Amino acid sequence: MNRRMVVFLLSRILLIEAVLMLPSVLVGLVYREAITWCFLPAIGALALLGLFGLRKPKDTAIYAREGFLVVGAAWVLMSVFGAIPLWLSGEFRTFWDALFEIVSGFTTTGASILSSVEQIPHCVLFWRSFSHWVGGMGVLVFVLAVMPMSEERSMHLMRAEVPGPTVGKLVPRMRDTAKILYGVYTALTLALIILLCAGGMPLFESVCHAFGAAGTGGFSVKNAGIAAYDSTYIHVVLAVFMLLFGTNFSLYHLILIRRWRNAVRSEELHAYLGIVAVAVALITVNTFTTAARFGLTLRDAFFQVSSIITTTGYATTDFNAWPAFSKMILILLMFFGACAGSTGGALKISRIVILVKSARQEIKKLLHPRAVTVVRMEGKPIGSDLLRSTLAFFLLYIACLAIGVLLLSLGEQDFETNFTATLACLSNIGPGLGKVGPTANYGFYSGASKVLLSFEMLAGRLELFPVLMLFSPLTYRHRSR
Amino acid sequence: MNRRMVVFLLSRILLIEAVLMLPSVLVGLVYREAITWCFLPAIGALALLGLFGLRKPKDTAIYAREGFLVVGAAWVLMSVFGAIPLWLSGEFRTFWDALFEIVSGFTTTGASILSSVEQIPHCVLFWRSFSHWVGGMGVLVFVLAVMPMSEERSMHLMRAEVPGPTVGKLVPRMRDTAKILYGVYTALTLALIILLCAGGMPLFESVCHAFGAAGTGGFSVKNAGIAAYDSTYIHVVLAVFMLLFGTNFSLYHLILIRRWRNAVRSEELHAYLGIVAVAVALITVNTFTTAARFGLTLRDAFFQVSSIITTTGYATTDFNAWPAFSKMILILLMFFGACAGSTGGALKISRIVILVKSARQEIKKLLHPRAVTVVRMEGKPIGSDLLRSTLAFFLLYIACLAIGVLLLSLGEQDFETNFTATLACLSNIGPGLGKVGPTANYGFYSGASKVLLSFEMLAGRLELFPVLMLFSPLTYRHRSR
Repeated sequence: MNRRMVVFLLSRILLIEAVLMLPSVLVGLVYREAITWCFLPAIGALALLGLFGLRKPKDTAIYAREGFLVVGAAWVLMSVFGAIPLWLSGEFRTFWDALFEIVSGFTTTGASILSSVEQIPHCVLFWRSFSHWVGGMGVLVFVLAVMPMSEERSMHLMRAEVPGPTVGKLVPRMRDTAKILYGVYTALTLALIILLCAGGMPLFESVCHAFGAAGTGGFSVKNAGIAAYDSTYIHVVLAVFMLLFGTNFSLYHLILIRRWRNAVRSEELHAYLGIVAVAVALITVNTFTTAARFGLTLRDAFFQVSSIITTTGYATTDFNAWPAFSKMILILLMFFGACAGSTGGALKISRIVILVKSARQEIKKLLHPRAVTVVRMEGKPIGSDLLRSTLAFFLLYIACLAIGVLLLSLGEQDFETNFTATLACLSNIGPGLGKVGPTANYGFYSGASKVLLSFEMLAGRLELFPVLMLFSPLTYRHRSR
Repeated sequence: MNRRMVVFLLSRILLIEAVLMLPSVLVGLVYREAITWCFLPAIGALALLGLFGLRKPKDTAIYAREGFLVVGAAWVLMSVFGAIPLWLSGEFRTFWDALFEIVSGFTTTGASILSSVEQIPHCVLFWRSFSHWVGGMGVLVFVLAVMPMSEERSMHLMRAEVPGPTVGKLVPRMRDTAKILYGVYTALTLALIILLCAGGMPLFESVCHAFGAAGTGGFSVKNAGIAAYDSTYIHVVLAVFMLLFGTNFSLYHLILIRRWRNAVRSEELHAYLGIVAVAVALITVNTFTTAARFGLTLRDAFFQVSSIITTTGYATTDFNAWPAFSKMILILLMFFGACAGSTGGALKISRIVILVKSARQEIKKLLHPRAVTVVRMEGKPIGSDLLRSTLAFFLLYIACLAIGVLLLSLGEQDFETNFTATLACLSNIGPGLGKVGPTANYGFYSGASKVLLSFEMLAGRLELFPVLMLFSPLTYRHRSR
């Protein structure tokens, strides 16, 4: 293992985090908040550690193992340092609470332990929401965009941080790919901020909610969340933009280079929109009350489905009070997640499509044992390696969920609460059902439970492997060959 | 498709079911119960239909497709006819209730809709428990034992009915394999009856409870279940025998031919006993109250773990009142199940072992992309086909569970009840948690929910494929090649 290069990359990331804290300081200065000092110790420590590893080592070769290790360690370190300002602000009872909150931010989960946010200083709220925006696209993708690195090496980092069964380059150079991704991301975020302001939402709230939607996070700066805005315009704009941020970003690149047809033909996009349409229809029928309220019922169903499938977690209604069938549809959506290559979490639609197809193939094989069957996705045949690794990913996902629920059960609480809390953290959604429903928060869990849920969030955001590998002895063992 | 052969096999099975009803009639005569007539219409109808297809067709060739179809259809037909005596006995409100009860019997689930059983006539109780014994080893295995068939053809039936990732023959001839299995099964059942009688349990109750343990079913003839017997001897004997019936029967054959060493070395057996030991230890610690009650705590933990992992479903204590952690361990055991080639249901330990190993392999592959890795089981390398089909089976299992819970949610009820009810039916266990806990029953579910749960039970017992194929258009489509 190339330890020097791991240290170099990690210190570079810490330096970047110090820079990323500056906008929050600016917000604090604009609002003349004395508590803004809480950022200074963290910025100082980050800068010091960042400068420590400034010298690039001679041997810059890294492999898959280093890639996973850097990504896993980077996210843990960023979270620990990112929690310091929250903790120093005095708004969180313990350091574990602050850590839970910022992990929830960076992983774009949006699970909060705060029961009330409106009295919290603007600079702290901004940092909390900004962490969604940073975490959504990924810090290492950002590193790639600003730091020149050889192709093969950057792929190892990209693969470990970008969600989805496969990682494709949009353009030949990885660095350009990262720049295009951040460009589209920034443009869409700005568009959303403008549209929200146009709907009468104050600028600060528009910016924070846009960060939450862009990263598919879900932190709000209102106690009542998006339900605080009684405006169909705002609900619909947010719901549509959440779906846009849940779309594979490579499709936006296809549109930019005027290959509309390829973008519109995407099999994953069809499945994604199809699932949204079916879920909205079923929930609308299931929660229908009177004809006069039909519009509202449809609007709420659309917003909640969009919020859950993109793993954002904003809520405009207390879906915990919905009938069991609608709640169960939301639970299924919590497993599905949005498209690969988007800012959303969970299994991802492309994996769901591959899983459904491989199940169908398995049945075909049993009926016709000698027939040759090929699974295709987006028109291309899927290799048996990708098939197997997708199935294995599903298995590990369920295993992470099961172990999480088992350990969380040590703290008592009912099955629905523990199950959906673990699932909502692993899938980076935020609110679950029962005692962690959209009107509740995670504050009641013990410190140990919060650390456990923090790891579930990290495992979900980094698609399991970098986090699993941090704990695997295989990672640190000398290679036998 | 060879329809004539399908009809021939099905009518042969119906004829056998008519014969299998005779012991219940005998019990009715011994106890001089007037209601015994309720068996006669069913026996008459079965005999008539059975004689209808007595002539063996000229073309006896069957393939995988016919094998799955025969097994799927046979189990549905057997259940419908098996429900008739229960329905006519007047102890069940509707035919759907009787059908649910007998499907629960044949599939060795043991989920009951009866809140009280002690007033029910002996002949009806006997048929209910006897269905566990018949369903445990499988009716088609019985057909194989009594009917000469060519090797390849009988494999198609055996593969569709016998649980486990692979089906091995014990001896060169399939017919002899089936005979050995039924021989071991009968001997173990007789031994259990004798041991229970020796412990002071009346003969009728011993026979019925032995049927329930042998088939890993779980129907009791006492309202309080096994908790009705305040005898450590009976609890321990039953717990040990449940574990024995959950062991791969091929190990007994190895012991019979004095290959002790091979039997004791079985990797699946080690995993099975290891999981039992860990689960018992964790639950004992978690439910520990006072030192004086330590023995009872250990006994209850052992009985419940043995009952759930073997998917029997007997209970000696209300585990629904256990702490959340212990309940969650039971839920995990509900997924695991017993060994392949036993009478137990669920995923099976051998699949769990394969799944764990393939997950480990996947992590290794990511760390060392070019390394060649081989997964071994019982010392032999596992082919990539078996790996992939085991992963696909896991996927389909979770899918059957998810769809079941979703549809069951239409009838309201809390998440814990719906989740564990579906899981307990799919894994052929019987009692779940919440409103379907060990002291409760499934009577409150609607007719539609009972039919749904009946299909979950059948899907679980036949390991998904025969039941899935009954509904797949692929099965009835003409072969294109």
